[in-house]
Amino acid sequence: MPAKVFSTKNPSIRTDLAVEARQFLTQQGHAVPGVTFKEDTGEYAHVSSVEITTPEGAQAMGKPPGNYITIESQYLRQTNKVIQEEISQILARELEKLFNLAENAAVLVIGLGNWHATPDALGPRVIDKLMVTRHIAQYAPEELGEGLRIVSALAPGVLGITGIETGEIVRGIVQNVKPDLVIAIDSLAARNVDRVCTTIQLADNGINPGSGVGNKRLALNEETMGVPVIAIGVPTVVHATNIAYDVIETLLGQVKGEMDLGIMGKLGAADKRQTIQAVLGPGIGDLHVTPKEIDFLILNLSQILSGALNVALHPAVKEKDVFRYLQ
Amino acid sequence: MPAKVFSTKNPSIRTDLAVEARQFLTQQGHAVPGVTFKEDTGEYAHVSSVEITTPEGAQAMGKPPGNYITIESQYLRQTNKVIQEEISQILARELEKLFNLAENAAVLVIGLGNWHATPDALGPRVIDKLMVTRHIAQYAPEELGEGLRIVSALAPGVLGITGIETGEIVRGIVQNVKPDLVIAIDSLAARNVDRVCTTIQLADNGINPGSGVGNKRLALNEETMGVPVIAIGVPTVVHATNIAYDVIETLLGQVKGEMDLGIMGKLGAADKRQTIQAVLGPGIGDLHVTPKEIDFLILNLSQILSGALNVALHPAVKEKDVFRYLQ
Amino acid sequence: MPAKVFSTKNPSIRTDLAVEARQFLTQQGHAVPGVTFKEDTGEYAHVSSVEITTPEGAQAMGKPPGNYITIESQYLRQTNKVIQEEISQILARELEKLFNLAENAAVLVIGLGNWHATPDALGPRVIDKLMVTRHIAQYAPEELGEGLRIVSALAPGVLGITGIETGEIVRGIVQNVKPDLVIAIDSLAARNVDRVCTTIQLADNGINPGSGVGNKRLALNEETMGVPVIAIGVPTVVHATNIAYDVIETLLGQVKGEMDLGIMGKLGAADKRQTIQAVLGPGIGDLHVTPKEIDFLILNLSQILSGALNVALHPAVKEKDVFRYLQ
Amino acid sequence: MPAKVFSTKNPSIRTDLAVEARQFLTQQGHAVPGVTFKEDTGEYAHVSSVEITTPEGAQAMGKPPGNYITIESQYLRQTNKVIQEEISQILARELEKLFNLAENAAVLVIGLGNWHATPDALGPRVIDKLMVTRHIAQYAPEELGEGLRIVSALAPGVLGITGIETGEIVRGIVQNVKPDLVIAIDSLAARNVDRVCTTIQLADNGINPGSGVGNKRLALNEETMGVPVIAIGVPTVVHATNIAYDVIETLLGQVKGEMDLGIMGKLGAADKRQTIQAVLGPGIGDLHVTPKEIDFLILNLSQILSGALNVALHPAVKEKDVFRYLQ
Repeated sequence: MPAKVFSTKNPSIRTDLAVEARQFLTQQGHAVPGVTFKEDTGEYAHVSSVEITTPEGAQAMGKPPGNYITIESQYLRQTNKVIQEEISQILARELEKLFNLAENAAVLVIGLGNWHATPDALGPRVIDKLMVTRHIAQYAPEELGEGLRIVSALAPGVLGITGIETGEIVRGIVQNVKPDLVIAIDSLAARNVDRVCTTIQLADNGINPGSGVGNKRLALNEETMGVPVIAIGVPTVVHATNIAYDVIETLLGQVKGEMDLGIMGKLGAADKRQTIQAVLGPGIGDLHVTPKEIDFLILNLSQILSGALNVALHPAVKEKDVFRYLQ
Repeated sequence: MPAKVFSTKNPSIRTDLAVEARQFLTQQGHAVPGVTFKEDTGEYAHVSSVEITTPEGAQAMGKPPGNYITIESQYLRQTNKVIQEEISQILARELEKLFNLAENAAVLVIGLGNWHATPDALGPRVIDKLMVTRHIAQYAPEELGEGLRIVSALAPGVLGITGIETGEIVRGIVQNVKPDLVIAIDSLAARNVDRVCTTIQLADNGINPGSGVGNKRLALNEETMGVPVIAIGVPTVVHATNIAYDVIETLLGQVKGEMDLGIMGKLGAADKRQTIQAVLGPGIGDLHVTPKEIDFLILNLSQILSGALNVALHPAVKEKDVFRYLQ
Repeated sequence: MPAKVFSTKNPSIRTDLAVEARQFLTQQGHAVPGVTFKEDTGEYAHVSSVEITTPEGAQAMGKPPGNYITIESQYLRQTNKVIQEEISQILARELEKLFNLAENAAVLVIGLGNWHATPDALGPRVIDKLMVTRHIAQYAPEELGEGLRIVSALAPGVLGITGIETGEIVRGIVQNVKPDLVIAIDSLAARNVDRVCTTIQLADNGINPGSGVGNKRLALNEETMGVPVIAIGVPTVVHATNIAYDVIETLLGQVKGEMDLGIMGKLGAADKRQTIQAVLGPGIGDLHVTPKEIDFLILNLSQILSGALNVALHPAVKEKDVFRYLQ
Repeated sequence: MPAKVFSTKNPSIRTDLAVEARQFLTQQGHAVPGVTFKEDTGEYAHVSSVEITTPEGAQAMGKPPGNYITIESQYLRQTNKVIQEEISQILARELEKLFNLAENAAVLVIGLGNWHATPDALGPRVIDKLMVTRHIAQYAPEELGEGLRIVSALAPGVLGITGIETGEIVRGIVQNVKPDLVIAIDSLAARNVDRVCTTIQLADNGINPGSGVGNKRLALNEETMGVPVIAIGVPTVVHATNIAYDVIETLLGQVKGEMDLGIMGKLGAADKRQTIQAVLGPGIGDLHVTPKEIDFLILNLSQILSGALNVALHPAVKEKDVFRYLQ
């Protein structure tokens, strides 16, 4: 049961972020009907939400209809724990808006990605730090305090290591564990280097084929899993091709204002691709651009995400204790 | 559907190794009917097999009926790669004796244990180095060479991190992936420190409740999974209680020959337990004895096991290339 | 210039902790002249100090004269971050009592031990999380805020990996970096399993030969380094021989009250050693007893120690921010 | 005693590889006097050597005079262990050509870079796998076999973690250990993505300021260390700026042949820099381009380098055993 793929006609949009796709379309002068946008700037973070309401909007954006919330903060790349607690609390609040769960509901958190490739390791690391309760609920229910939901968690690994589609693995677990909600964490690819490790995206319609740092072919969404799927994604890389593409576009943009472009103005998509391939070689899909301190950034982000999940999932965990129960 | 637990009446046998259980019973002067034993000493390794054929044998041994093959070699604790290739080849041959698979059969390899606790990390590390082919068989079958079976692999994590029984996770995967055989790798607890990281045990009847370094409550065997399950276990720890128990027994044994034991001779199980608890404290179950260089030993063993699996599972991988396709 | 070794005549004291050595002697009914003792019990931690003032005290204790402060808390094995901040603050205060540094003093922190052997990795991990400032002081002094001392840090590795004595490496660095104080962090061996990862020991007389989880032959102290050396040690293992020895003693103790011991009462040190060796095998020195969750405990402790160092070394880092600048 | 910096006048050459610098100059039509070049293509690897003999050559190339040997092989990015043994043997032979040591000479191997940043971790990982002998020579000389030189090794860490210049640390060790030769391993930055993890460069004149993935300010060479320094470098990243720069140049090159470039032809270095900065943002220096599977590639390379060092440094280790003594 493969999910429908919403591929934009504009092949140059290679981003997992709704907020980037919208920005790109807007900059290009495209109208984006069926897409609503709101934003709010706080002291430490900027929160914006994109809602895709129509098939046309989905087509233009290259993303399925749904709510996309983006939390942006340059503090995510710094070391100030106090501010990071605040961002983690903001994330917890935004997460809670996306679901409506009974007090004793069961939630399965899935950490997508590869433990052994740093920029792709965010999901597994969040799982590692998360407070899980399902085994206590099953084997020692009297020890499970009030206000704690039934949380389980899994990092299923990646296709190259398991030989199994992530979606197949998760479906098997869902059939046995029967959660009311799945939350999937993933490393994403951004278009713009400024967004790397500074942006957290929430979506209430799951994770879709071709997204993420690795390759996923089977969607994790309500259609494939039978329960709602919330996705939390953080861009941790930019594909090198995007860098190259943007250099070309920026160069042409700089020249454009000044005079007739000559043959440059006639450069088509194929010419641009040829230039990019000449620089990046045939293995272009595999080159990632990351900040040098990516190991540190992933560690930081895993605390912020795990802490926010602990608060959002368990009414008994208060905001002030957002980092308290990290494993 | 919990598996039947074969618990020996002798509570002092706390070992996952059939060869140790048998040795213990023999030393105590117990006859062990329904248990056959064979052995063979090579240049670098000693191979023995214990077959438990009757319920009485199972009761006495504290293990279900089946074949248990043990490969022992002190070279497993050394660094000689040439000899380790030989042991890996021996392991491949013994493994092949335990199954009878069609050329295009599908095998799921499960790496039990905890990535983040070194002595328990053997299973996940084997998965990591293993050659998997199922995704190639599915997405690019023309690229899958002759003589390669359909292998997938998963490290499901441990209960404390996932909140889900390992058995539940594996059952979900088995239902979706539908392998013809499951092979489960696990770190074991030995009774005797000499066996730690020097012994590899194969069993054709799966992994059973309460075995292993962590706690597993649901068996992985043909009854619970619907397909045969081969277990590969390596002892990586001794419980500290076993050390303490053996000290007491050895001490009593030394004294016995010489004179009347007085009150020492009347020491019952409860007294011994009290002594042990006085030394090890209330958290006695959680203390592990390991060699200091356990990190290195686990790395070594993961190569030997992954290499052997590559040879045993794929007719096209020759013995001389046992370490060639390690990931 | 090898340091003088203070070896106690009592070979059964195999502990790096002054508080344990004293306790052992006291239990045995030995008077310990030249050793003073103070203690203070707080809500979350017990702080005691042993001062060895005379050569006789040093001889009896098997440790050189100096101040030994011990912070004990069962909370060190739990996950409560709020309480751990408090313990980190207590540690910072006790550390500050041991030195008297100018505002612009330079401190070199040395993390002893082996990155790749979990129980021995505490030192290197503390280094990794520590805030260092020396490079800023050298290359951008205008960016170094007020109230920050000049801190550098190194994890020199272990003899088996480097082929160089730790002491030789540190001496080379000290000669080039010229700090006013060296602080050395090390994993220790305790006698008693209750102390593992629940005790932090500070000493103002450095680290001495034969201490620690690995083997160090050259002392790190004022005599060898030319500047004062403070040691921070945390027991992370118990040698398996100690467990065995304690089982024997406990057993004999239990029997003693009740009747004549017979031959048991005549068991000498050699007999006991023989029993222990029979159980633990010839490689007895290499067997470590650790809690199963040692990976998690080391991570936790590294935060507590790094946080405390940040507060103690930099007047500008306030107690409330003890975990704020962890790297 | 800072080393003289050889900075080329051509700011667009931002590569640590002599072979790339030469190629770049040649392509630009520059004559490169004072630089000789030889090459040899084998079945699995291409070996070339650049010798810079004059100050003019050094100026043009941006590198100090000396011998630069480059081993190139696409097999370095694959998993074939048999071919990798061959490349490791070739590397051993090339290494041996660069030194002339007595049978009992002492060698110190330095692994530069950061354990916690994957592309920068090659040096520390090589150290970890290397066979060291100095401690045996010191403490048990009778156990040191014939044909083994006195090898020690250290991974000194990076400035941001230690606060100490790598060069200061190494100088301190050299003064204490007194080796006859230093060999320094480092991760490098290449200009061209094809070279990443496919090229190994040897140089007999040490490591120089500003080279490598991180920043080094103090050279490691005969001038600063007092003994010869051989450098082994492997490019593991390309700076994102180079990608951007090459895209611009390639684009201009494609256009050039066809017609008058108009304003494009007049684009100066400042314009290009402005374009690049517009795309990459102000933090451009910190963006690295790496292959997605960099973790795996670094592991592989560390085996090849350690194996080659074992063979080259110890006459008793034969080529056929190149991977046998890896730790």
